[in-house]
Amino acid sequence: MHQEPGRGYVLGVDAGGTSSRALLTAADGTVLGTGRSGGANPNSHPPAEAAAHIVEALAAALDAHNPGRVRACVVGLAGASKLTDPAVAELFGKAWAGLGLGCEVRVVSDAEAAFASATSAADGTVLVAGTGSIAGRIRQRRRIATAGGYGWLLGDEGSGFWIGREAVRSALATLTADREEPGPLARAVLTEALGAHEAHGTGLRTAHRLITTVNGQPPVRLARFAPLVSALADTDEAAGTIVGEAAAHLVRIALASRDAGERTPVVLVGSVLGEGSPVGARVREQLAGVDVLASSDGVAGANWLAAVEAFGEQAPRPLSG
Amino acid sequence: MHQEPGRGYVLGVDAGGTSSRALLTAADGTVLGTGRSGGANPNSHPPAEAAAHIVEALAAALDAHNPGRVRACVVGLAGASKLTDPAVAELFGKAWAGLGLGCEVRVVSDAEAAFASATSAADGTVLVAGTGSIAGRIRQRRRIATAGGYGWLLGDEGSGFWIGREAVRSALATLTADREEPGPLARAVLTEALGAHEAHGTGLRTAHRLITTVNGQPPVRLARFAPLVSALADTDEAAGTIVGEAAAHLVRIALASRDAGERTPVVLVGSVLGEGSPVGARVREQLAGVDVLASSDGVAGANWLAAVEAFGEQAPRPLSG
Repeated sequence: MHQEPGRGYVLGVDAGGTSSRALLTAADGTVLGTGRSGGANPNSHPPAEAAAHIVEALAAALDAHNPGRVRACVVGLAGASKLTDPAVAELFGKAWAGLGLGCEVRVVSDAEAAFASATSAADGTVLVAGTGSIAGRIRQRRRIATAGGYGWLLGDEGSGFWIGREAVRSALATLTADREEPGPLARAVLTEALGAHEAHGTGLRTAHRLITTVNGQPPVRLARFAPLVSALADTDEAAGTIVGEAAAHLVRIALASRDAGERTPVVLVGSVLGEGSPVGARVREQLAGVDVLASSDGVAGANWLAAVEAFGEQAPRPLSG
Repeated sequence: MHQEPGRGYVLGVDAGGTSSRALLTAADGTVLGTGRSGGANPNSHPPAEAAAHIVEALAAALDAHNPGRVRACVVGLAGASKLTDPAVAELFGKAWAGLGLGCEVRVVSDAEAAFASATSAADGTVLVAGTGSIAGRIRQRRRIATAGGYGWLLGDEGSGFWIGREAVRSALATLTADREEPGPLARAVLTEALGAHEAHGTGLRTAHRLITTVNGQPPVRLARFAPLVSALADTDEAAGTIVGEAAAHLVRIALASRDAGERTPVVLVGSVLGEGSPVGARVREQLAGVDVLASSDGVAGANWLAAVEAFGEQAPRPLSG
């Protein structure tokens, strides 16, 4: 281990809906420990459980290292706005007080951690499209305004939920129109929703089963149809259209978060915008001339935000390996 | 009473989500009895309770009249497609078997009863916009195809749910745009959602409270914002735009249920298309040249469908008073 005991450690956490990951580094970026636990979004988990998962990941990353020597700790939290509720904030505060860290814990949004994971720039735009969608205006590494992000009921255009819903609507339009033969996307939707034996179903009875099945499940489960759209973007006309519309919606909220002619980077986050995704490719096309980056790993971003806090702008990024 | 004992009676029921109403008439249309009970949509009520409500309304309309002399009985049922489930159909069948009617009970959709309430034509279009929206192609007084009607999660464009959601989205767009002052519609939405003291709220904190409030309630509650849009259609630009888009969606599904150049009547049903509603006015404008009628009363339509079954096409409509 190459720790520099004279300068102390920094800790970062990426706390999302399905897992929490922590990363402890020395001042030179050397990785001293990592930790992992369950999901910690306080909107989808009981806040006490969410806080306990973060503490568990932090404790695992610290292992035998002296917590009192941690100089800065940043938690990038999905659902961070929940901590505007004083009761929830107090519960989180008490949970990590037990760790004996040598610093306060600073909570930032998962979008801020994602932005910092991709670039050392202080200003720019973060564009998130997973199950939901939201764009953020980043200034001095803080998200000072958002566009979109109303949640699936009121918006989230271009998100996995939205793409999945459009896929089902497209299949229904085909099934309820007398003259059309279901195409590859409609067949894929029917297979996913009703099983392979229904893949070639046609007509109103099949449409009715699809409607009933989808309406009988939690709305966000519609996001499971989104990968079908990505997979068929080049071969099914309806899928290609949905991809184009999703990209247009996402570009619209990204631009709403930017000044006219702004030249800062745009950081893409989330499965809909991931490596090789057709929506991501269209977004990059439409943002030609802008530096479009992929978020690498939120925990590295949170760790680096802690390092900047402790050691300044020139703090090294965590070294891999 | 002017009953004609030699020809028997006919019974109609309009069974909706909030109430069930029954109407007993003689062959000449004379009203012999009416009955009322609770909601009977088997999608929103337990089927046993729904069936019991229909039976209660029927029994009240029959009162002391001999049920064995009923020649035809038609129930116009919201959620009638639920009776394709054999268990539900059996439960309904057993419930009204106990009445001792002199005929089978025929269940039709509430849309078919509404169409028959407005016109004696056998063919046409029924366009429904209440909390949800759906258009139906009517041939020989049966709805043989539909357009729209996927439910709020997948569609229902132009419905009260959809209009209410657009109203909230419009308010959010105003609140999250720096430069705009909330207009009358945004203020009305804030008052309805958050209370009069929030009517002049601005900015992201108000937007966040609106999002949280709406997302914390059942989705169909969004329909409560629809009357605000109707009320402000002439004075608020955003409300006028929503009304125009709703009408365009409804005309689209109505036309999807009609042949090119079809000259049959279109019957409008539901609160969004009711007397004096701006959406209804726009729909009538866009369907210029077509005979556009208002559904009067579903129970009269169901009763008349029963009369046609018993006495033929020339059966009189129920006489009022």
